[in-house]
Amino acid sequence: MQFEKLDSIPALAASLPRADENARAEALARQNNLTKPPGALGRLEELAIFMAGWQANPRPRIERAQALVFAGNHGICAQGVNPFPQEVTAQMVANFDAGGAAINQLCAANGAALGVIALDLDRPTADFTTGPAMTVAETLDAMNRGAAAVDAKADILILGEMGIGNSTVAAALGAACFGGSAAEWVGPGTGSDPAGIARKIAAIEAGLRRHAGQSPMQVLASLGGREQAAICGAVLAARAARVPVILDGFICTAAAACLHAADPHLLAHCLVGHASAEPGHRRLLAALGQTPVLEFDMRLGEGTGAALALGILRSALACHNGMATFAEAGVAGG
Amino acid sequence: MQFEKLDSIPALAASLPRADENARAEALARQNNLTKPPGALGRLEELAIFMAGWQANPRPRIERAQALVFAGNHGICAQGVNPFPQEVTAQMVANFDAGGAAINQLCAANGAALGVIALDLDRPTADFTTGPAMTVAETLDAMNRGAAAVDAKADILILGEMGIGNSTVAAALGAACFGGSAAEWVGPGTGSDPAGIARKIAAIEAGLRRHAGQSPMQVLASLGGREQAAICGAVLAARAARVPVILDGFICTAAAACLHAADPHLLAHCLVGHASAEPGHRRLLAALGQTPVLEFDMRLGEGTGAALALGILRSALACHNGMATFAEAGVAGG
Repeated sequence: MQFEKLDSIPALAASLPRADENARAEALARQNNLTKPPGALGRLEELAIFMAGWQANPRPRIERAQALVFAGNHGICAQGVNPFPQEVTAQMVANFDAGGAAINQLCAANGAALGVIALDLDRPTADFTTGPAMTVAETLDAMNRGAAAVDAKADILILGEMGIGNSTVAAALGAACFGGSAAEWVGPGTGSDPAGIARKIAAIEAGLRRHAGQSPMQVLASLGGREQAAICGAVLAARAARVPVILDGFICTAAAACLHAADPHLLAHCLVGHASAEPGHRRLLAALGQTPVLEFDMRLGEGTGAALALGILRSALACHNGMATFAEAGVAGG
Repeated sequence: MQFEKLDSIPALAASLPRADENARAEALARQNNLTKPPGALGRLEELAIFMAGWQANPRPRIERAQALVFAGNHGICAQGVNPFPQEVTAQMVANFDAGGAAINQLCAANGAALGVIALDLDRPTADFTTGPAMTVAETLDAMNRGAAAVDAKADILILGEMGIGNSTVAAALGAACFGGSAAEWVGPGTGSDPAGIARKIAAIEAGLRRHAGQSPMQVLASLGGREQAAICGAVLAARAARVPVILDGFICTAAAACLHAADPHLLAHCLVGHASAEPGHRRLLAALGQTPVLEFDMRLGEGTGAALALGILRSALACHNGMATFAEAGVAGG
């Protein structure tokens, strides 16, 4: 998948694959014949049917799970929006590469192959209070790098991110796409104090004023960052290959929300892995009409909430594929 | 562990092991040095510290996980409280033994060794509207069989149950232990219609009238069943061996709630795996002061919610034990 114009992204909704309704119906019929009262596995049944639709397979499988973490640096850090120095982004990428981060453990525990893609960390985006964060060419380049990283043969894709300052970016994207004041979208991120939160709010307000009245994909360029654009590219490439996606928390969802604002159908193949403790995430989930799989007060990013949700999906499919039907088991009541 | 008198159960709270506060403190200190903002893994951090305390090990492990499902039959079915015939209990036990039930798939997916213990299925308890469901001797026998089934070398124990009619038993135990009307504790169970729910309420009201003013352990005998007593025995035997426990949903929690009503310290080593869709479970969770690990609208029993939660605990410990500290990773901000 190759992106050449931001303007043509919304129209993709008409041409990208849809969920296979026959596979969904067959999966639902199977669920209703398994040795349990219909519906008794609750959300696990919904997740199995969701996977059936996107894999176009009434017996969906997760044999090959890919996790991608995109990292970027942000010019908005010049406004003092984050207590950590930008060098931490590269240090955490080194930690990912060495296997020492939370996402490494959660990918190992839940069976995902982790790919980490550092996007020009030595070349932060521009400060969005003084101009667009990225040029259109930079945005398309990051989207294409995100798309190119997707394994089209994966059974599921987990998305995450790392980037000092990117909770400010996420709040700006949310406010620009869905309205509301900067203060309503801002939270403590990696640990801002009240003065730091005030700086985040002021920076976002300045960015919203400077880049008002833009389309969602223009917003991605003006207020986003490379890892946000890469996430959008990966989401679309996964869709083209019928690979269902688990988005992570606030920052990952905010990136994908630009696609939702462009056309809600673009995210139909995406789940949100968890509800972040970052307050703006609730607003995003409501805007996207998404019920997160998990809720553990996590606020780390990296794809950690999505990787945890992968374990739940594995359990959902284990039940769907492995359970006996009433007839097979000779149990009354089927 | 051998139980000889129901009256002596509450006093066990004083002699059974407590969480190791040193191990908890060491585990917390480790969490605060790992490469993430302190607290950013939310509930996963709490779960790791919980495990550290009960295993008395600042680096807790799950190498040996045991799941026990106890099955029993209930005389209260004579009151028409369940749309399924009692034979389904034995049929489902056969399904467990053949590997075809949800709990089999979830134990396999989340790494637990499953033991299924059918407790005198051909000898249902008595109808509690006409007398005590079990004699004291029957209650102690079931408790001892539950205790004897516990693997004292397990790193964690998952508990579940199966028994046609036992959502009525659970509602009766909840109302007797914590007050409230029968109607407030009753839900659809495996699928009762309004007339069936009315029969459940009437049966519980009759049972509450007949067995009023009893101690929690007497309530277990009068209104409970063999699988409920076995769960209580297993909970206590696990505690004696410092094995943390994950309780399942409404019925399993209601059984253990008799111990909580006897002395809340008796359940200090227990988590509740999920919040059941069965409405009485909310009341139980509030009475026990428990926040369930998961919430998926499941209402199957068998230990399914607890087995799912085991996967989350594995992820929590993978992060706790596998992540690098700030110093190890050379990341700024530790």
